[in-house]
Amino acid sequence: MVLNGPNLGRLGLREPEVYGTATHGELAALCRATGTAAGLDVDVRQSDSEAELIGWLHEAAAGGLPVVLNPAALTHYSYAVRDAVAMATAPVIEVHLSNPGARESFRHVSVVTPVVTATIAGLGFGSYRHALLAIAELTR
Amino acid sequence: MVLNGPNLGRLGLREPEVYGTATHGELAALCRATGTAAGLDVDVRQSDSEAELIGWLHEAAAGGLPVVLNPAALTHYSYAVRDAVAMATAPVIEVHLSNPGARESFRHVSVVTPVVTATIAGLGFGSYRHALLAIAELTR
Amino acid sequence: MVLNGPNLGRLGLREPEVYGTATHGELAALCRATGTAAGLDVDVRQSDSEAELIGWLHEAAAGGLPVVLNPAALTHYSYAVRDAVAMATAPVIEVHLSNPGARESFRHVSVVTPVVTATIAGLGFGSYRHALLAIAELTR
Amino acid sequence: MVLNGPNLGRLGLREPEVYGTATHGELAALCRATGTAAGLDVDVRQSDSEAELIGWLHEAAAGGLPVVLNPAALTHYSYAVRDAVAMATAPVIEVHLSNPGARESFRHVSVVTPVVTATIAGLGFGSYRHALLAIAELTR
Amino acid sequence: MVLNGPNLGRLGLREPEVYGTATHGELAALCRATGTAAGLDVDVRQSDSEAELIGWLHEAAAGGLPVVLNPAALTHYSYAVRDAVAMATAPVIEVHLSNPGARESFRHVSVVTPVVTATIAGLGFGSYRHALLAIAELTR
Amino acid sequence: MVLNGPNLGRLGLREPEVYGTATHGELAALCRATGTAAGLDVDVRQSDSEAELIGWLHEAAAGGLPVVLNPAALTHYSYAVRDAVAMATAPVIEVHLSNPGARESFRHVSVVTPVVTATIAGLGFGSYRHALLAIAELTR
Amino acid sequence: MVLNGPNLGRLGLREPEVYGTATHGELAALCRATGTAAGLDVDVRQSDSEAELIGWLHEAAAGGLPVVLNPAALTHYSYAVRDAVAMATAPVIEVHLSNPGARESFRHVSVVTPVVTATIAGLGFGSYRHALLAIAELTR
Amino acid sequence: MVLNGPNLGRLGLREPEVYGTATHGELAALCRATGTAAGLDVDVRQSDSEAELIGWLHEAAAGGLPVVLNPAALTHYSYAVRDAVAMATAPVIEVHLSNPGARESFRHVSVVTPVVTATIAGLGFGSYRHALLAIAELTR
Amino acid sequence: MVLNGPNLGRLGLREPEVYGTATHGELAALCRATGTAAGLDVDVRQSDSEAELIGWLHEAAAGGLPVVLNPAALTHYSYAVRDAVAMATAPVIEVHLSNPGARESFRHVSVVTPVVTATIAGLGFGSYRHALLAIAELTR
Amino acid sequence: MVLNGPNLGRLGLREPEVYGTATHGELAALCRATGTAAGLDVDVRQSDSEAELIGWLHEAAAGGLPVVLNPAALTHYSYAVRDAVAMATAPVIEVHLSNPGARESFRHVSVVTPVVTATIAGLGFGSYRHALLAIAELTR
Amino acid sequence: MVLNGPNLGRLGLREPEVYGTATHGELAALCRATGTAAGLDVDVRQSDSEAELIGWLHEAAAGGLPVVLNPAALTHYSYAVRDAVAMATAPVIEVHLSNPGARESFRHVSVVTPVVTATIAGLGFGSYRHALLAIAELTR
Amino acid sequence: MVLNGPNLGRLGLREPEVYGTATHGELAALCRATGTAAGLDVDVRQSDSEAELIGWLHEAAAGGLPVVLNPAALTHYSYAVRDAVAMATAPVIEVHLSNPGARESFRHVSVVTPVVTATIAGLGFGSYRHALLAIAELTR
Repeated sequence: MVLNGPNLGRLGLREPEVYGTATHGELAALCRATGTAAGLDVDVRQSDSEAELIGWLHEAAAGGLPVVLNPAALTHYSYAVRDAVAMATAPVIEVHLSNPGARESFRHVSVVTPVVTATIAGLGFGSYRHALLAIAELTR
Repeated sequence: MVLNGPNLGRLGLREPEVYGTATHGELAALCRATGTAAGLDVDVRQSDSEAELIGWLHEAAAGGLPVVLNPAALTHYSYAVRDAVAMATAPVIEVHLSNPGARESFRHVSVVTPVVTATIAGLGFGSYRHALLAIAELTR
Repeated sequence: MVLNGPNLGRLGLREPEVYGTATHGELAALCRATGTAAGLDVDVRQSDSEAELIGWLHEAAAGGLPVVLNPAALTHYSYAVRDAVAMATAPVIEVHLSNPGARESFRHVSVVTPVVTATIAGLGFGSYRHALLAIAELTR
Repeated sequence: MVLNGPNLGRLGLREPEVYGTATHGELAALCRATGTAAGLDVDVRQSDSEAELIGWLHEAAAGGLPVVLNPAALTHYSYAVRDAVAMATAPVIEVHLSNPGARESFRHVSVVTPVVTATIAGLGFGSYRHALLAIAELTR
Repeated sequence: MVLNGPNLGRLGLREPEVYGTATHGELAALCRATGTAAGLDVDVRQSDSEAELIGWLHEAAAGGLPVVLNPAALTHYSYAVRDAVAMATAPVIEVHLSNPGARESFRHVSVVTPVVTATIAGLGFGSYRHALLAIAELTR
Repeated sequence: MVLNGPNLGRLGLREPEVYGTATHGELAALCRATGTAAGLDVDVRQSDSEAELIGWLHEAAAGGLPVVLNPAALTHYSYAVRDAVAMATAPVIEVHLSNPGARESFRHVSVVTPVVTATIAGLGFGSYRHALLAIAELTR
Repeated sequence: MVLNGPNLGRLGLREPEVYGTATHGELAALCRATGTAAGLDVDVRQSDSEAELIGWLHEAAAGGLPVVLNPAALTHYSYAVRDAVAMATAPVIEVHLSNPGARESFRHVSVVTPVVTATIAGLGFGSYRHALLAIAELTR
Repeated sequence: MVLNGPNLGRLGLREPEVYGTATHGELAALCRATGTAAGLDVDVRQSDSEAELIGWLHEAAAGGLPVVLNPAALTHYSYAVRDAVAMATAPVIEVHLSNPGARESFRHVSVVTPVVTATIAGLGFGSYRHALLAIAELTR
Repeated sequence: MVLNGPNLGRLGLREPEVYGTATHGELAALCRATGTAAGLDVDVRQSDSEAELIGWLHEAAAGGLPVVLNPAALTHYSYAVRDAVAMATAPVIEVHLSNPGARESFRHVSVVTPVVTATIAGLGFGSYRHALLAIAELTR
Repeated sequence: MVLNGPNLGRLGLREPEVYGTATHGELAALCRATGTAAGLDVDVRQSDSEAELIGWLHEAAAGGLPVVLNPAALTHYSYAVRDAVAMATAPVIEVHLSNPGARESFRHVSVVTPVVTATIAGLGFGSYRHALLAIAELTR
Repeated sequence: MVLNGPNLGRLGLREPEVYGTATHGELAALCRATGTAAGLDVDVRQSDSEAELIGWLHEAAAGGLPVVLNPAALTHYSYAVRDAVAMATAPVIEVHLSNPGARESFRHVSVVTPVVTATIAGLGFGSYRHALLAIAELTR
Repeated sequence: MVLNGPNLGRLGLREPEVYGTATHGELAALCRATGTAAGLDVDVRQSDSEAELIGWLHEAAAGGLPVVLNPAALTHYSYAVRDAVAMATAPVIEVHLSNPGARESFRHVSVVTPVVTATIAGLGFGSYRHALLAIAELTR
């Protein structure tokens, strides 16, 4: 499962100098292609809703599914997402397109990091691709 | 009204060393039974959505209904829930299953406490039962 | 577009010593009347949901529409709303009915202000009216 | 054992708008009556002395007795009381008459909470009554 | 009364990318024109001296005159100006040409805001015009 | 009532470069003489025990007696003394021999000051004499 | 010399619930009368200007004159006044009409206190009277 | 003189995983034996009372006696004990059984350390033995 | 170039519950093998010396070589390493074996992150492998 | 232009252990002599008034004149002086007689430094001389 | 092994009022003599290099050797030394000649203490001697 | 002695927009030329190693040689360099090419400044030249 948080649905339309011009649809296609190559059945979802993301994390926890998670802005304050991640029964990898440590200071704090397996940031779409490959290795 | 916040729907499935193995359904049953014994008509609801919880708090405020509220992770950052609680027209008691003061430091801060009537924490399901009994006394 | 955040739907019912007794309906009517006078087509919406507000901000960004935004309690922690505002393609003016700087200290911090065009606070419904007039001037 | 800290001996005489007009004697009577009904032999003590409270906590720890503890102002700085509570061999419930979270900011911090079993605050004398009932349940 | 603080006399000459190229004289003219249209007799003054600004605020307080105040850099540290504003007997509206919340972090703190009626920032000269219109409404 | 806190019994023996060489007995004599001249019946007490000081403050509160209080080191952390002072039914003046603001930074904070009537510091024994004279004036 | 800082010239007109209704003229008269009784030649001055106060402090330092100083709001930020006080060649006593420790938190910090001889606060005009008497004693 | 603070009387009964199982009596015996071997007359005392500890420190100061001091929890907040230590006329060595720097963060701060001669921590009873030997050397 | 900081030479010998039992030699072999597969000529070096690491970073910058960098404990305080990284003329990816965000709080801060291209943490040796693959992609 | 802030007019009279015994007149003479040697026409001014200093900075900005500025205590809080410096159209060098970094902690912060060209401190009158020589070089 | 950090090689030459006049050679001799008496083979080393100290700590860890460590200034920031200490396979005792808690505030924090067995400070060369004796006891 | 810290060896190659394009060799030549003109025998050294810099500072201290020191990034955390500077027996002047106060916030703090004689920053190579001239004057 690949879960994307608030505002990521508008990828490509949003601040291209930070996030590039490729769209969320292209990101989803890349993830699915990477999954196919790695023998994973990848399901890419995006929501602006904290509650919907939490529901999907519950679904993953119930199904023992690993998750690639980009909580976007929720990274910095959503203890509710954090608690949902902490329930995971398979690896969760936190990803970011850009390098939050090189941006505004509020982006230097992630309340989710303490409960994830691993983090990958700053590789653009590559962050997702490497996370999926790592998931494939971890769950083999 | 008993309102439970994010992730509490998965009680019993989640971190049993912290929260025990009884489920949200069992909690709801206990609350209803306690209510019946105390002459209260108890309505137990759970949502992962801040907005839905706010809507229920509005409903309670409009109806002059007391509330037993476990905001779960929203306790620590949701000023929106806090503002909804501040509109209450009857007692609101904040409850927690575990003792947040004995856990991670971010759980030591509650942005909701300053606007509730009372708080009960650390008694497991007992936190709810005592809150309901206290509601019964306060509204007699 | 005039967007109102959590709990503002209960205006007039909520803490009248802070917010007055006029309702959200009356506020919407005033905004529309102001808009008509200023040659703007004003659409007033309110939601307790962060996700819904973000969706509306996306809609405004996609349509190049200016926004008058009262994020209410989300002002103080919703980096997701902030990121959505940062995508705006037309002016966004942050408004508040009361003067947050004269209230509790957590209300002194706005995570949204750094990405808006302007702020108006403390004029009650007048905050909206002046914001709409300013929008009319900025977009002329 | 019900242990009350500094200044609680003057209950009823002290800031009645915060603590009500009932006296410490009336509180003790209520606690004993609650205990009798719940099958507990309740011993209510009050001291302005940190050392005496520590001695009583030692006595409780040595005897395996549960404690209902209102450390009053010591709540906010007495690591000595905290260390004595940490020696407990039976449940300790921290109680407060009022809701400290709704008062001055120094009252928002409890150095004792991390080592107690549970906390109940804001129910006036009811805080003690519910704590005693909870003790009865926990030790059954 | 429109009172402008330190360095505003050099408007138009100073950091035009932040403040534009129009001068203080043009600002004063705009304010007077706005006043005439709104039925206000507008007196625009500028001083680099904290003491002179305080004296004018005393004059306004003594005369029951509303004030539009741009304390410029004094916004961030002059408790003396704050105390003078707190003596006001008519509305005081704090204005800023730019949006201080989008600039250096020291500009995010206003020691004056807690004692003013309202704030308007980020509209350039429009901040003053809207403040004057709001004054006209508030004092009608 | 003149109440002196921990270590003040060793005045004159302790750090004479800070506190001078006169003893607590001499201080008490001065206070009594000042009282006689001002028509006050002055009772000077000293204790190293927080509990005893609290008891004396209760005694003063019960008798409606004004207090001159030097809490010594308890000034900086004893919320229990603060709560006892807050029960006062007559003026309480906090005094210090030296000027705490000119010493170590922990001495710059007084948890007692927010609940006293007045403070006098830095005049040596004169701090007590002026406090007693002020008490005489306030209670006339 | 008695030196009063910003806004004190409007004593009696300003926030009477904090400062009372007597004027600066009455305060000056009281100070002069106290001085006459104590054998001091008292010169009372007031200024809203930090620079003028500094000049007077220089004058006092040059003449070896003791000073009773109420820096008003400058207390909390004027390191320039502090440096001028540090040049004093005779005792300087800092006075306040009210008790700043019982007011807003920014008033709890005095940048001047570390360099004065003594402080007296909370006695209204009595703060000045006792400061003058103390000066008389210190300089005898 | 060896002085032990709050809760140390229950050594051996308290948190044996931190403090071991030997009792305070055994500690006292070890100290006396160490003293005899080193030519010191060792007097071991324990109190849960801050005031009693202060009294003993006064006694030591008056008698010019060196002190081995374990302030236990008072280490972290008792400025009154600190002031009593500062009066010492012979060496004072602060000891701890465990290494406070490896425990909860509040134990990382000692308000007493700035005024002692030396500190020894983490050697269990050995902390006392080495402190006594060091005292013997320092006072030879 | 793969550069490893202090203590990483003892991999496998050090805290195996955190870092596993494989040695630095095995890590180097894995990196070289990954490089060969990806068409990179990988040079793995380790040093406990900040200066040597800086020298290697200079060498990489001079040669336009990308770097995979695990600064180990230097991550948290070495602004000298940071400045050397900032001179890079090709991508630099910061890697960690474990997830620093899930460990002691001092490990949550990286002074190097703001100047790297990307970060990968928590995948054990996989962190290096994915970093090398990402380097291969970025430099293609 | 050489501009000196509050209290520097009393150089030589003030705290000679910090500032030496030479007077402001002697400093001015040295500056003029240095200027003559370096081909600069040096104008030395001193004021205790923030407003006057701001006016002189405006004058320098209007004339394109470089400035050697010792803001004295205003260094640490005057954002108004900072804003005036930021308008400079020629180099501004901040100087201090002593080394503020070796004095009280409030002197470690300069709000002016971020907008000056260079800083020189700790060389006594030499700070000014070297600043003037540097100005001569920078403006050649 | 006795390991001394930066600048300790210049003992006796450096700030004798803090560290005394005996040299590092004399310290080494004392340590060796103490070791001989206690049946320990003591190897005393000093380095100004963090890397060299880390290497020696590795050597000790590999050999199962206990260490007496004075990290000198590295105490306060070297997480690399801390990580090396954490690898120890035998007791490590941190020593200091003086009492850091009585010096500048940056010396109050030790990043090494959380991972050592014990600490001894303030006894001059005696800190080393007692540490060696304690090592002898711990490893017997 | 002119000592340059980490990364300065790559001057001219590193971030030319901050440091210019002249190399360390050119800087050394300038320093030597300045020295010759001023009658000083200037020895310019650069190292990326904290230990080597400390050794050179020891050499200077032993020889009574003044030092011009640019600690580069070590400025912000190396208490070991600070302690070595504190041993100096002749003036030490801290220099910086750029103005650290105008760059990232971590560069605003210098742990070395409290122990140097003087500081010069922001004049590029001129910082060194003026420091050398000042050394010549101070040691004449």
